[in-house]
This record gives sequence, structure tokens and C-alpha cells, in this order.
Amino acid sequence: MKIAVLGAGAMGMLIGGYLSRGNNVTLIDVDAGKAEAINREGIRIIEPDGSVTHAHPRAATGSEGMEPAELLIVFVKAMYTESALAANRRLIGPGTRVLTLQNGAGHEALLARFVARAQIVIGTTQHNSSVVDRTTVHHGAGGPTFIGVPEGSLEGLRPIVESFRACGLACEPSAEIQRMIWRKLFTNASASVLTGVLQTPMGFLLDSADAWAMTETLLREAVDVANGDGMGFEYAQIAAELQQHLAHAREGKTSIYADLRAGRKTEVDTINGSVARASRRNGVPAPSHEFMVHLVHALESRQAPDKEESHA
Amino acid sequence: MKIAVLGAGAMGMLIGGYLSRGNNVTLIDVDAGKAEAINREGIRIIEPDGSVTHAHPRAATGSEGMEPAELLIVFVKAMYTESALAANRRLIGPGTRVLTLQNGAGHEALLARFVARAQIVIGTTQHNSSVVDRTTVHHGAGGPTFIGVPEGSLEGLRPIVESFRACGLACEPSAEIQRMIWRKLFTNASASVLTGVLQTPMGFLLDSADAWAMTETLLREAVDVANGDGMGFEYAQIAAELQQHLAHAREGKTSIYADLRAGRKTEVDTINGSVARASRRNGVPAPSHEFMVHLVHALESRQAPDKEESHA
Repeated sequence: MKIAVLGAGAMGMLIGGYLSRGNNVTLIDVDAGKAEAINREGIRIIEPDGSVTHAHPRAATGSEGMEPAELLIVFVKAMYTESALAANRRLIGPGTRVLTLQNGAGHEALLARFVARAQIVIGTTQHNSSVVDRTTVHHGAGGPTFIGVPEGSLEGLRPIVESFRACGLACEPSAEIQRMIWRKLFTNASASVLTGVLQTPMGFLLDSADAWAMTETLLREAVDVANGDGMGFEYAQIAAELQQHLAHAREGKTSIYADLRAGRKTEVDTINGSVARASRRNGVPAPSHEFMVHLVHALESRQAPDKEESHA
Repeated sequence: MKIAVLGAGAMGMLIGGYLSRGNNVTLIDVDAGKAEAINREGIRIIEPDGSVTHAHPRAATGSEGMEPAELLIVFVKAMYTESALAANRRLIGPGTRVLTLQNGAGHEALLARFVARAQIVIGTTQHNSSVVDRTTVHHGAGGPTFIGVPEGSLEGLRPIVESFRACGLACEPSAEIQRMIWRKLFTNASASVLTGVLQTPMGFLLDSADAWAMTETLLREAVDVANGDGMGFEYAQIAAELQQHLAHAREGKTSIYADLRAGRKTEVDTINGSVARASRRNGVPAPSHEFMVHLVHALESRQAPDKEESHA
């Protein structure tokens, strides 16, 4: 399958690297030095068990001269989705499927500005990955990737599912994909963002009554917003699942934690911002998610206290 | 005048010290070493201009053997008001006025559990003070102290006003005292708490659109809650005044900033907690203030990231 991947970040390199073992894959990334290095050295994947594998997709800084892809996977940070799609429209032909596995719900709305709704595929993956150096990622954990369509039937997804499986990536079509995306978002928009703001491991949310109260506020609003779209989630069940998840990942730290610590931009617009946007669309209030978006952006943009001190 | 001051913190030492120049003042504080040191050395006040003055109130760890005071000033942190009053009931006689100058609104409700409403005096002061060492405070800035009564006439306040003035403390009775207390609370419950959470100077709230958006959310909810009590504040005017204040105190840092930085308990229960309690009482929603109370408590109780690192 002719596959293009927008964004050679941690997830783009991982999934693009895997898929390149049985497909014709090109990674598109604005970082010219990185594209060059990937073309020269390939990608090193440090697997969860410590073993190291290699993959050799092509890489480029743009799509000049390329034909439309059969599958275009969007893996840029959500804030760059629009510019990445605008710059690479030529990869989208009438037969191209455009797949987003980005965090957060509602990406199909933006994708629909560049491609017909019938060509859009949405999904969620249990893989996670972090960047080690320009051509190396650490594959933190694996698990199935679920894909589905915003509307219509799953029939057209068979080739995608097979090309994933052929490369060792478990993949399932799902008629419940929006529910699965929301489930992941529930965790990210409550526990992940809070542990980022608080700069604590996940277990703190179970240990502090105040932290858990905030987790519940965020979770309840997110569930209410999802149910405003007819998802029919049961709050008590979602909360119980989150508690179990936290109990099993007490020492876990999130990408928002790491981004804020390093003074980087986070994905909060995709996380709490997704809930806030759905709230504005369907009228179910989500004031705490609006507040968290501002809080995280303010934390991103302040001068870090430590830096401040060192100038004093 | 026979005055007892509950709490020999920064403000108790400052105001108690000043008042001791023309009155019979006893500071009551649970810290025995501090009480002993004050009795031995007196209180040193470093004035805003750098000059140093001394004062010699009595200090004690309790009120055993004392007669009721003419004026009892409550200056403990709000979370200790109840236990301090319970332990020192003998200082309250039928002729005792009980004055709170603590931050936050609504203290009269708790005071009314220990003294008749007609004996309660509420107020707000522009003095601020910080602890330098056990017997020394830094008087950051001065200004008038306004006092009033939760209900009824101001007539009985004359002796208090005069005893303040006789000791060099500007003091005015005010028929608008609840409005003045709310005005101070508006700043504390929005700008002060946010700069504490963000660990930034005050000016950051003007520089970051996200920080200002949160300031506005908190301010608007607080104004709505106050107006639910019939205060009749104009939001646009309150917001404009706050902006002016921030512009004049760009480098300013708040006590919540300092407390969180030092890993101490803050006064958030008096600040955003006051707004939240009034909201629950009068039914005007204040979800962001509820959230801030939890957020600040969670920040107080987490293991500080720096400490965590040093164990790693």
C-alpha cells in the first residue's frame, strides 16, 4: 500500500516505521535535518523489551512531485493538522483514505475541510512512543489499534486493517470507534492534564482528595458532553475504570507532564480543547475544560520559575 | 483599652504591636517559644522606609486567668478561627467587641457562633506585613483600616476607631464595609490565587491572554456571587480597577505565591473558599472558585517536584 505519514514525531516514526516493513511509506516532516537523517540511517525502534529493531521508510520535507497516497495518516500535533493538510493536498486523491490516530475527539471536522467525509477514517491506538534522538524512538507499550468511520459502513477499511496486520500491528475495525475515542479522551482530559498541571505521578490523584475532586469534575463534564452527542456513557462506570487505571499506573507520568516540565507546548487544545469545542457545539457546559485549556497555556507561556530564579 | 489579639503572625504582630503603644495588649499564640521571645525581646517592626521601631505587648499561649477583653481581634489564619475562639471563650464578655480583619468575606457567620451578632465588628485593612523572624515583622505597606458592622449602626465603633488612631493607625468606620471586604476579595480570589498557582508576578496576568481569561472567569463569578447578596457591583468597573491595580504592581507577588513556593498551607479556604461558601448559600454558581480551592490544596499537598527529583 502506498502510505504517506504527516509528521515524523514519536508516533509517526513508530507507526510509519512498522508499516514500512510491508508497504511503500513516506514520512513527511518539516524538519529537513530529520528527514535527511531518516533517509540516511533509517529509524531505530527500541522495543518495550529493550530489543532494537530497524525500519527504512522514505522521508521528505514535503510532497512535491508525489502522487496521491492510498492511505494518508495524520500524526502531526493537532495544532499543526490544518497547515500540514493544506501543504500536502496533492497527496489526497479521490481514492485516498485519510486516517487520524491523533489524541482527542472531533478531528474529522477539520479533516472534512480537505477530504470527503466518506474518505475519512478515525481511530485510536494503544501504542505509545517517545523520541530518543532524531532517528530513534522508544516504543513504550503496544496494543491494538482500532479504526472506524465517522459515518457509514466499515467495509472499505479491510485493506488498511490488513496492511497494519501484515506489519505486526494489531488492528481492528470498530463500529464503536467514537465511543473508544471518547473513552481515551476521558482519561487524558482529566487525569493526564491534571498530573501535568500538578507535576505529580498518576497515583497522586488517588492519594489526594482535592486532586480526585478535580478529576471527578473534569470527568463528569466530559461524560456529560459526550452524552450530549448521544454516547450514553455511565459516569459511575467510567470513574471506576479510571480509578483502576490509575491504581495500575501509580508511577506513570503523562506527555503533558513532560511537556510542561520541559517548557514545551502541550496537546491541551486536542485534549481539554476537544471537550470544550464539543461543549460549544452541543451546548452541554464544560467550564472546567475551558479553564484547563487556559491554565495549561498560561503555564506553557510563563517564564519558568526556576529560570527566573537563576537570573536573580 | 484592654485588647487581646488572637494569633501572633505577621499581621497580629504588626497591628498588635502598634496598638500596644496606647493600649493594654496581649497577643495569644499557640507557639510557646514565640510568646516567650516576644515577652523577653518585644516586637521589632521594620517600617516601609527601612526604619525600625519597637513595641512591647504581652504575649501568652492561652487566656488562662485573663478577664474578658474590651476588644478581641481575630488574626489567626481563617482555618484556625474556630479552634482559637473555642479555646479563648473566656476573653469574650457581654461588653467585648470581636473584630476580624482577616482576608475573605463571611467571617461573621463563624464569629456569631461565639458572640452575639451585635458585638461583631468586621473590617479590612490596607496594611500588609511579613514575618522576618520570631519577633520581627516587615511592614510592607500601610493605609487605612476600615471597620463596620454586619448589621445595625456604627455608633459603638467610636472607641475602637480612637484607640487605633491614638497609636498611629488610620481607621475609619464605614457603612459600606461588606462592599469593601468584597472588593478586596475580588482581587485576592482572582489575581492573587492565580499568580500563586502559576508562580508568576502579578504583571503576567496582563501579559498572557490565557491568564487574563482565567482572571476574568474568577472575577466574573465572584462579582455574580456578591451581587447575589445584593451588592450591586458593576463587572466592567471591577475588571478595569483590577487591571489598573495589576499595572501598578507588575512585579508584585502574593502570599499564596510565597506559601506555595515554600510548601506551606495557604489561605485559599478564606479566599476562593469564601466565594464558594457564599455561592452555596445564595445559589449563584462559582465552579471556578470550587476548582481553585481543590487545585491550591492539591498543590499544597503534593510532594514538591524539586524534592522528588533530589530523591531520584
